[in-house]
Amino acid sequence: MNAYQELTRRHQRIYRLGHLQSIASWDQSANMPEKGAEARAAALAEMGGLLHELATAPEWPGLLAQAAAEPLDDEQRASVREMHRHWRASNALPQQLVESLSLASSRCEHAWRTQRHANDWDGHRPMLQEVVKLVREAAQHLSQAGGLSRYDALLDLHEPGMRAAELERVFGDLKSWLPGLIQEVQAHQSTQTVLTPVGPFPVAAQRELGRAVMGLMGFDFEAGRLDESAHPFCGGVPEDVRMTTRYNETEPLTALMGVIHETGHGRYEQNLPRHWLGLPMAQARSMGLHESQSLSFEMQLGSHPGFAAQLSPLLQQHLGAQPAFEPANLHRLLTRVQPGYIRVDADEVTYPAHVILRFEIERALVEDEIEVDDIPALWDAKMQLLLGLSTVGNFKNGCMQDVHWPAGLFGYFPCYTLGAMYAAQFFAAMRREMPDLDERIGRGELQPVFDWLRSRIWSQGSRWDTAELVRRASGETLNPAHFQAHLRARYLG
Amino acid sequence: MNAYQELTRRHQRIYRLGHLQSIASWDQSANMPEKGAEARAAALAEMGGLLHELATAPEWPGLLAQAAAEPLDDEQRASVREMHRHWRASNALPQQLVESLSLASSRCEHAWRTQRHANDWDGHRPMLQEVVKLVREAAQHLSQAGGLSRYDALLDLHEPGMRAAELERVFGDLKSWLPGLIQEVQAHQSTQTVLTPVGPFPVAAQRELGRAVMGLMGFDFEAGRLDESAHPFCGGVPEDVRMTTRYNETEPLTALMGVIHETGHGRYEQNLPRHWLGLPMAQARSMGLHESQSLSFEMQLGSHPGFAAQLSPLLQQHLGAQPAFEPANLHRLLTRVQPGYIRVDADEVTYPAHVILRFEIERALVEDEIEVDDIPALWDAKMQLLLGLSTVGNFKNGCMQDVHWPAGLFGYFPCYTLGAMYAAQFFAAMRREMPDLDERIGRGELQPVFDWLRSRIWSQGSRWDTAELVRRASGETLNPAHFQAHLRARYLG
Repeated sequence: MNAYQELTRRHQRIYRLGHLQSIASWDQSANMPEKGAEARAAALAEMGGLLHELATAPEWPGLLAQAAAEPLDDEQRASVREMHRHWRASNALPQQLVESLSLASSRCEHAWRTQRHANDWDGHRPMLQEVVKLVREAAQHLSQAGGLSRYDALLDLHEPGMRAAELERVFGDLKSWLPGLIQEVQAHQSTQTVLTPVGPFPVAAQRELGRAVMGLMGFDFEAGRLDESAHPFCGGVPEDVRMTTRYNETEPLTALMGVIHETGHGRYEQNLPRHWLGLPMAQARSMGLHESQSLSFEMQLGSHPGFAAQLSPLLQQHLGAQPAFEPANLHRLLTRVQPGYIRVDADEVTYPAHVILRFEIERALVEDEIEVDDIPALWDAKMQLLLGLSTVGNFKNGCMQDVHWPAGLFGYFPCYTLGAMYAAQFFAAMRREMPDLDERIGRGELQPVFDWLRSRIWSQGSRWDTAELVRRASGETLNPAHFQAHLRARYLG
Repeated sequence: MNAYQELTRRHQRIYRLGHLQSIASWDQSANMPEKGAEARAAALAEMGGLLHELATAPEWPGLLAQAAAEPLDDEQRASVREMHRHWRASNALPQQLVESLSLASSRCEHAWRTQRHANDWDGHRPMLQEVVKLVREAAQHLSQAGGLSRYDALLDLHEPGMRAAELERVFGDLKSWLPGLIQEVQAHQSTQTVLTPVGPFPVAAQRELGRAVMGLMGFDFEAGRLDESAHPFCGGVPEDVRMTTRYNETEPLTALMGVIHETGHGRYEQNLPRHWLGLPMAQARSMGLHESQSLSFEMQLGSHPGFAAQLSPLLQQHLGAQPAFEPANLHRLLTRVQPGYIRVDADEVTYPAHVILRFEIERALVEDEIEVDDIPALWDAKMQLLLGLSTVGNFKNGCMQDVHWPAGLFGYFPCYTLGAMYAAQFFAAMRREMPDLDERIGRGELQPVFDWLRSRIWSQGSRWDTAELVRRASGETLNPAHFQAHLRARYLG
């Protein structure tokens, strides 16, 4: 067995054990009764420790060095590149720091659930300061290991290859036109009449509707399921994708669009390259790319005017006919733009504003340019600038609204808007190749879209770095002009 | 850390990883879509290998020897006894033999699924011969490791402490009166009129009924669930018990009694001693004891004439009122005795005949007294003797009906009837302590039964060996007279 084969064997062992971890995590959210929580947490922590042991065994650096000297083909070289990246990420942090950060962020996140509700910034601040202190330490370690700035080192964990300088370029572009566009769209929509669906809509009917729409979007139910959990997610393994959602009996569209969003994640996973499964190269390229697939489904397709004609009969079949579900009204419902405080409730047009302000704050925080105490004032100033809203004193709907920072997750927010930009760029490329794409979507011919995404993105796994994958798929690297053009066409067209 | 603490740590690691194994196995039966099968099998096999590695690490014998010399209290000594038993069972077989047996029995079981359906004994025979050959080898290894006869060594894996000689004594007792009793009961029942329930009975209603009856039987839904699978079982972990069942829309009682049966297994697991969890001593004592709990629920309680009065209103509430569900008729339905070919369909009175004949054949087979070729004739002779039925040429409903032998499982069948005998003995002891027990059950006061089982059996885990546990619980070791008295009272009383 040469070093490459030995590396492959080790990755496959980690992959297989991770499969059980993944299914048990899904079960924890979707099925587990209350009294199972403690034992499950202990079991998952034990497995987490074991997987970390396996990923940091002392043989790795030698094996990686040996493999680099072996006669490998191009794919195998790409595979070693990804193995190396995984090894570096697993080994950069001292065990002690991993444990302190895990402890501090668990405590902070747990407290946040109550503190946010109580708008208690003063109570939250010291706990967040502790998390930020440890995140800065972690970023420092990662920075030294990878030769990147501290924020770039965190960003690289989620969006390999992306840098703050590049984000500043593309987000700077967005900032130059987004506030103006929001106003234009609001003026444009101010004369529209939009009917709101009148419920109630029984959960059982919504569940069947969700499954029908997943079927329409090509989800393979022989390789996955849809269940329910308090916080919807797409988990499981590529061979058995576990999507969850939650239902609201008075308002069915949020759950439905959530299902469509997760279906994008799910199809990416279901169609990752089978012949590399178990190797890092078979994994989704990045979180931004993952988000580009969920947003391709939710926004590019799901809110497409032609797609409303596909959704409308399914809604009427499962939830009963009513004027709000007619295609034209449905499309207006799904494309309503309204600046608001809450990121997760934001529409497609205002969403990037929420991401940009978080990126700017977390970058400065990680780079020691600001402190936790500065967050509320910065939040308010940026919300005023980008969305014209004041958040003075309104912490719960301001800087305390997201779980990310209390949970120690920094460098992740940009992925959401990178995903939206990639998705727009991919659909622009599709339209160049298939000039009648929009007519096809209007006729319910979605297969060309799925085929394009499968061949260009899903089947490529982590074969190429992100910039190369995007260039091969769409003919150019990240270009925010496509996102602007998409928004103008959809919301002002 | 002394050796005992190190042993504890190692067992807890195995227990925690086993938790994930157990939940993923349940998921495999209850949730997993088809295309997940291959990856799941690989993941479970990887974990199986890892757990075996952990259980056979070279440090165990030294740690066990050191622990034996440490100053331990009585409980800790009992704990070391069980740790030693586990270590011996994990280490007795050469890895090569474990793999050959696993392969041969997987192939045989897989083929059996088709061969049984086709009544194809000639096709099945050579595959079963291969399994028996390897089982004999395994029994030989276990025999040498434990100083037992070959069959006793297999039996000891499932029912520690039980020996074939003891089984011959108690089963010999049963054989002396069972055929006569069956005839008496059939004569007694021949004049009864029994109404059959008229369906259909929708699955959703049966599901609610099952949950209601589980609630009546004290199942803790905060520490477990009821789901569906092709082959009902009780899995999961003590902190989160996963029961499954399957429904038949035309006949609801089989599923219902199956749920009651599994609830007995489930409550045993849910009430194992919490302070030892993770250690072998916290595990259920034996498969016979486990079966005694499911049969305490299904037979002693579930088919009790007084319990029919508890079941009847729930049946009528969930499935609609009909004369067949009146208490007296319901009790007659649940206690109908009729010799038949199939063990899993057998009633409480004829069931032991099925077990005794299997025990006699598998014991002789493992001890080299007979060969696979001899099975059909022996099967027929014993069925004639015990139940008056001929199985000549009828392999599918004769010696090919069970999965156990094709799957390599020998020494397990006796546990079913041991369980029935233990259950009868426990209820006899309860009646001595609570002379009004039957009236209480008739009034729906089940708590005294549960309290007795919890304090005497469930909470004891594997603190005592089986004979001692049974003696402490009921005042005597295994005594088949209680089973006979139970059957006479219930079926001829």
